[in-house]
Amino acid sequence: MEKKTAKAFAPATVANVAVGFDILGFPLDAVGDTVTVERIDPAPGASPAVTLAGTDGVVSTLPTDPERNTATAPLIRLREDQGLPFGFRVSVRKGIPLSSGMGGSAASSVGALTAANSLLPEPLPRESLLKYALLGEELASGSPHGDNAAPCLLGGLTLLRSLDPVEAVRIPVPEGLRVVLVHPHRELDTRSSRGVLPRDLPLKEYVAQSSRLAAFVAACYAGNLDLMARSLKDGLIEPRRAPLIPAFHSVQRAALQAGALGCSISGSGPSVFALCRSDDEAEKARRAMAAAWEAAGVPCDSWTGRISQAGARILENGQAGGAA
Amino acid sequence: MEKKTAKAFAPATVANVAVGFDILGFPLDAVGDTVTVERIDPAPGASPAVTLAGTDGVVSTLPTDPERNTATAPLIRLREDQGLPFGFRVSVRKGIPLSSGMGGSAASSVGALTAANSLLPEPLPRESLLKYALLGEELASGSPHGDNAAPCLLGGLTLLRSLDPVEAVRIPVPEGLRVVLVHPHRELDTRSSRGVLPRDLPLKEYVAQSSRLAAFVAACYAGNLDLMARSLKDGLIEPRRAPLIPAFHSVQRAALQAGALGCSISGSGPSVFALCRSDDEAEKARRAMAAAWEAAGVPCDSWTGRISQAGARILENGQAGGAA
Repeated sequence: MEKKTAKAFAPATVANVAVGFDILGFPLDAVGDTVTVERIDPAPGASPAVTLAGTDGVVSTLPTDPERNTATAPLIRLREDQGLPFGFRVSVRKGIPLSSGMGGSAASSVGALTAANSLLPEPLPRESLLKYALLGEELASGSPHGDNAAPCLLGGLTLLRSLDPVEAVRIPVPEGLRVVLVHPHRELDTRSSRGVLPRDLPLKEYVAQSSRLAAFVAACYAGNLDLMARSLKDGLIEPRRAPLIPAFHSVQRAALQAGALGCSISGSGPSVFALCRSDDEAEKARRAMAAAWEAAGVPCDSWTGRISQAGARILENGQAGGAA
Repeated sequence: MEKKTAKAFAPATVANVAVGFDILGFPLDAVGDTVTVERIDPAPGASPAVTLAGTDGVVSTLPTDPERNTATAPLIRLREDQGLPFGFRVSVRKGIPLSSGMGGSAASSVGALTAANSLLPEPLPRESLLKYALLGEELASGSPHGDNAAPCLLGGLTLLRSLDPVEAVRIPVPEGLRVVLVHPHRELDTRSSRGVLPRDLPLKEYVAQSSRLAAFVAACYAGNLDLMARSLKDGLIEPRRAPLIPAFHSVQRAALQAGALGCSISGSGPSVFALCRSDDEAEKARRAMAAAWEAAGVPCDSWTGRISQAGARILENGQAGGAA
């Protein structure tokens, strides 16, 4: 008997990472979505072959139409592409708040794909799931950006060199590097957050930002945290989005005063991340950032941890049995 | 007696390097400028204290006013800043053609500074000469870009993280990497070449270009030449400048067909560079590129070599003697 159900964990992700708009991201295991997928055998021609059994956890208001839900839509395409003779029933437990800038839609897509893939007679290589996950991202935000989906799926500090064809490059993470992620209880829709970005931007700003991006990548390879601190500054996107986030500059200042290497908006916000040199420094920055938001009357949740090298993974399989 | 004269060699440089507009560059020792500087003791208050004795070599039409010549102007500022009690007489032998995109103005500045610095009672650290070299660049092109001056002065594949304060990061060069540089006998003024760039450029193009920049830096650190080949493409600047360069696309195609990892405009053009995996491949690409230009009726010069790790250097000192 083949496996019939699988449960996968897909971590939250910090995208953009100050200097890599739409191309850099990393996962944080401290928070994520859990997706359970069950293989179903619908009557021939029965529709839909991919159904959403339910969504619970910190979000329960996601679209129920399988074509519009970011967990199920990628499975519909996966099933068609692979000519699968069976369907899927999907349950999502959201650990990632809605419109938080923590990669929630990517996590639901990647979690569902990871679980479903493990139920295939011949599971696909992990990388080849990325194109399906990007469908979920396009559905959620209107743009097929991959800086959440790629690190969520593959783990590590991930650079998307190209979306077509999809190619992700794993950047080494310096020893000791720690992450702080703080989520204020406000929603900021990705579409709105993209809406404040002009279609064209000054070449001069780009030159400055690209020098910091290149120096950040160099700092990662060289393990040079001083260079990282000098590089981890967003002069291109952050100034345009910061006004959408209450007390952003107080929170950023608090992180830097607490010793963080850098601090900027996580993905399209409103969550904010910081990178730090150690567990102690991360804990200090986390407290300072949370305190700054609380002082501004904005309650928040916060986490610390390492950049996860694992990415999405199977938590358990049901009815595992002999080979197909 | 102190040293009275010094002669320095300053190499040609390839700036931009396809993906690093205004921030990346490297030197090629095969061609460069040679600058001789003599310490002079003008009568107190005599002016000018920095004079140009002459320019020869492949260019002889440079400004003779010391305030406007890229070799002498930086020395005027150096002398003022350091409160030097003596002046300089400067002779430049140009190996780098005028308006060629090979960093000729940077080489004259850097050569003069390197020679003059060796004549100081206490020579400055090499890095601290960069700010003076940038003055020469501003004079020559109207913009204080440092992607020629920094690699010319410091050597190596150089990333300018910041111009203010000046900070250069040396990126490792993968084993075996070779350079081809081909100079068509056409002049392209840096100001004209900058003139075709709009003030604002589409964010979408930035994202694609910055992903290639980050991947190029990663490829250098990882020694991954396949990744370098996929990254070394300029979708931002080259399409706008290519029409200024006769037969550019034929030359580029010839390089790539000959096996080059990548090929694009050197600096602001019209010279074109290619990066290759070996001496043999570089020689093959050089011939193919030169043949493409000759076929289009454009005579050219061409060179191959390694990315120089040395940068500018003293060739000889005259009258070296006891300590000051």
